[in-house]
Amino acid sequence: MSTSDWLHTDIGATTADTITIRGRDLAGELMGRVTFTELAFLLVQGREPGPGETRLLDAVLVSLADHGLTPTVLAARLTHTGAPESLQGAVAAGLLGAGSVFLGVVEDAAVFLGEIVRAAGPDTDADLERAAGDAVAARLAAGRRIPGLGHPIHKAEDPRTPRMYAIAAEAGVLGANLRALELVAAAAAERSGRALPINGAGAAGAALADLGFDPAIVRGFALLARTAGVVAHLAEEMRHPIGMPLFRELDERLSAEER
Amino acid sequence: MSTSDWLHTDIGATTADTITIRGRDLAGELMGRVTFTELAFLLVQGREPGPGETRLLDAVLVSLADHGLTPTVLAARLTHTGAPESLQGAVAAGLLGAGSVFLGVVEDAAVFLGEIVRAAGPDTDADLERAAGDAVAARLAAGRRIPGLGHPIHKAEDPRTPRMYAIAAEAGVLGANLRALELVAAAAAERSGRALPINGAGAAGAALADLGFDPAIVRGFALLARTAGVVAHLAEEMRHPIGMPLFRELDERLSAEER
Amino acid sequence: MSTSDWLHTDIGATTADTITIRGRDLAGELMGRVTFTELAFLLVQGREPGPGETRLLDAVLVSLADHGLTPTVLAARLTHTGAPESLQGAVAAGLLGAGSVFLGVVEDAAVFLGEIVRAAGPDTDADLERAAGDAVAARLAAGRRIPGLGHPIHKAEDPRTPRMYAIAAEAGVLGANLRALELVAAAAAERSGRALPINGAGAAGAALADLGFDPAIVRGFALLARTAGVVAHLAEEMRHPIGMPLFRELDERLSAEER
Amino acid sequence: MSTSDWLHTDIGATTADTITIRGRDLAGELMGRVTFTELAFLLVQGREPGPGETRLLDAVLVSLADHGLTPTVLAARLTHTGAPESLQGAVAAGLLGAGSVFLGVVEDAAVFLGEIVRAAGPDTDADLERAAGDAVAARLAAGRRIPGLGHPIHKAEDPRTPRMYAIAAEAGVLGANLRALELVAAAAAERSGRALPINGAGAAGAALADLGFDPAIVRGFALLARTAGVVAHLAEEMRHPIGMPLFRELDERLSAEER
Repeated sequence: MSTSDWLHTDIGATTADTITIRGRDLAGELMGRVTFTELAFLLVQGREPGPGETRLLDAVLVSLADHGLTPTVLAARLTHTGAPESLQGAVAAGLLGAGSVFLGVVEDAAVFLGEIVRAAGPDTDADLERAAGDAVAARLAAGRRIPGLGHPIHKAEDPRTPRMYAIAAEAGVLGANLRALELVAAAAAERSGRALPINGAGAAGAALADLGFDPAIVRGFALLARTAGVVAHLAEEMRHPIGMPLFRELDERLSAEER
Repeated sequence: MSTSDWLHTDIGATTADTITIRGRDLAGELMGRVTFTELAFLLVQGREPGPGETRLLDAVLVSLADHGLTPTVLAARLTHTGAPESLQGAVAAGLLGAGSVFLGVVEDAAVFLGEIVRAAGPDTDADLERAAGDAVAARLAAGRRIPGLGHPIHKAEDPRTPRMYAIAAEAGVLGANLRALELVAAAAAERSGRALPINGAGAAGAALADLGFDPAIVRGFALLARTAGVVAHLAEEMRHPIGMPLFRELDERLSAEER
Repeated sequence: MSTSDWLHTDIGATTADTITIRGRDLAGELMGRVTFTELAFLLVQGREPGPGETRLLDAVLVSLADHGLTPTVLAARLTHTGAPESLQGAVAAGLLGAGSVFLGVVEDAAVFLGEIVRAAGPDTDADLERAAGDAVAARLAAGRRIPGLGHPIHKAEDPRTPRMYAIAAEAGVLGANLRALELVAAAAAERSGRALPINGAGAAGAALADLGFDPAIVRGFALLARTAGVVAHLAEEMRHPIGMPLFRELDERLSAEER
Repeated sequence: MSTSDWLHTDIGATTADTITIRGRDLAGELMGRVTFTELAFLLVQGREPGPGETRLLDAVLVSLADHGLTPTVLAARLTHTGAPESLQGAVAAGLLGAGSVFLGVVEDAAVFLGEIVRAAGPDTDADLERAAGDAVAARLAAGRRIPGLGHPIHKAEDPRTPRMYAIAAEAGVLGANLRALELVAAAAAERSGRALPINGAGAAGAALADLGFDPAIVRGFALLARTAGVVAHLAEEMRHPIGMPLFRELDERLSAEER
């Protein structure tokens, strides 16, 4: 049996005596020493985060974990109604709706800001401001929305945003992406004449980019955060079901309409 | 529009000004103060964990997050091969295989130990030992396996198990379920004449039960842990694909067989 | 590169010139000659169905395809609300709830009837009646439900059941499982003093078993049928959304409750 | 309880006595009279297909149902390895990879051809040829691929394509989209100097568009077709597993590499 150059992972391995993650012994070096948040960072980036990075990543995950009875949570609960024996199926259903409409902003913001940060080069604030202004102008000229700005409910201010900036600053990890997002918001307000607040998803995307995550994977952290929320809703669904009575109410209302 | 008694969640709510989780203001009281692990505990149980509980829950999540190129990780990577535009679909595929064969043990152990702990009543060690012995005897008489014992790879000892017990003891949260699992292992060894080690999934299930989680939801924490591992593998898949070359190799081997 | 005895499929293969399914050339022998229903039968059983078998399988698939705004359809629609870019994710969410509560009956009936048919041996009607009576008695003594009997909505008669029997009889493929199900219903009525109608899912499970499908895969045909229904609901959702207004109404009702 | 204008479906309804699909009684008017393919057409379009339309839709579904051990089939089988108790989870995993890389072409072709057909107006062949040429020129100028042309394996000709055209012609339903696709292939060959064959997925997308399906839902029929293939592979997986031995082989090869 031959090995193959493509068959390789740097993430981990298991032998009869040990389980290794990123070169560290799981039982001896990781359990009891690192938190789950630190492990998630290590798993993806291959290095352990510093204390400030951990603090910001925890804040990001906490900010994205739950938003009440959202469409994706309802999908998870309704899936549990039909297949209570398969918790993984209900959790999966709860993640499948985490797409472009709600969580896509986290990724869109990271991609958009990444382009600005790259255009600004080894960043001085003036370069970043210019690059942000150019990117905003190009988007508005194309009639497109600016990722990370505005929120259907939190119209004046998303309460998570100033908190995220404060935590990043205190922790000493407020980087180019978070700064670029503020410059983007200012440029957009100036050009459009309408100030839109930075939303929590946009701030989370910028924070994840500042923590060194590739824009293509930041949505993965939104999914990780949401898994905790979905699991909590399913635990509640087992005791106080919403799926079945919701279905029954809709069924009665539909029948009433038929008559 | 009428409200309905079934339409209710204690988990959280969103208004124009605030996002609330379990009665706490997300931005003002949770972000920057609690870790993601503490939030996951709070989301499910409705109360914040103490420091020892957090330490044990972190250890459980760390122990379950990744085991290398498992069947579920391969499923996630192969799903990404066909649908790279939908990260949530690949993560969902990675969770759907977390069923009875691999992660089911976490739940099975929690259910089994819960019955022993309940049978023992307000627990003295003697009662627990008797209840464990009875439960093991009943299982063996029925020709069934004891959940949480034995491992296909770690035949002598699962390295995660002694570490989990040490962490629980140090943190002051080693409870009736973890103790019952040791008594179960001893009773099984005595009756069957063959000592099987407590596996890591069993220890994780016992720890989650000791942390106060209902056995019906402990699999949710295994899924949460696995999400971090799956996200890491998908981040690696984007740079060093395994899905497509694996498919191509299998396709060539199948064609060679046809000839 | 070595071949392996486990790496083999009888279902199909693709080369530079041909696509083969079950030994038949896809383009030359199947397209335009067999229907999709006949292909599904061929794919799973490895042989083409006769005309009567096709007629019954079509009736089964038609009977299971759609039941209006069920919990699984709602889950699919709500998933589309959040991730309209990923149709496969919404369809998958719509299948994940097809578990024990609704579609499980199709499989449960096939398993239960399979045991009766096996116990009856090369079947005479008297043997089948005795085996059905014994199985019903054992179930009722254990306090368990009889799979395939009773329906929450169609209390007197499930309109699909007599139609399925008529089609099977006309098509000359009314076999031991469908007959056993009638004997089961009669035995249950006699012993419990309460006549429960054979439900459509039970009749579908019996018909699939009579068509030669293993009980372990009959749920797959229920999933195939449901996929058509879910796709139709998603096509409608694109034009007349239910997911978003449902979420908004529930959100308002929850907010009203808070005040 | 009030009804709501958004709470409405034209697809079907269930009452105590009847199940209705698109205004037809399921038991009395559909079972035994329409095939599953006809029902799928009716469910999505709200009208029954004519015989020629049914013949072409059957050919499309047959052409897309199975292509051997593809990445999505492997994902389904590996999911079954970990969660054999949840057939719907394995089927869902098998659909989640049906994204942009493999099945996206069906949708991309339908979207692209729809634009050409609309641009050509009430179509004369000359208008269609001009519109196809313009669209191809615009794509090539933008450095983009032409959807529906070329195939990684079937380099000279995809055997499904001429068969699909022959069936559509015989059935009298060869419409503007299929014709436009031929004109697109000719224009692309002329401009690029390299003749790429029309692939089977492109022909399927064109055929679905000619059958009157909105481009946004044609991927749904690819998913329906694939469900039959995935179910067949899972039935085979139950008897001759590939998932577990594949995982074990990869695990051994990885371990060998470590040493």
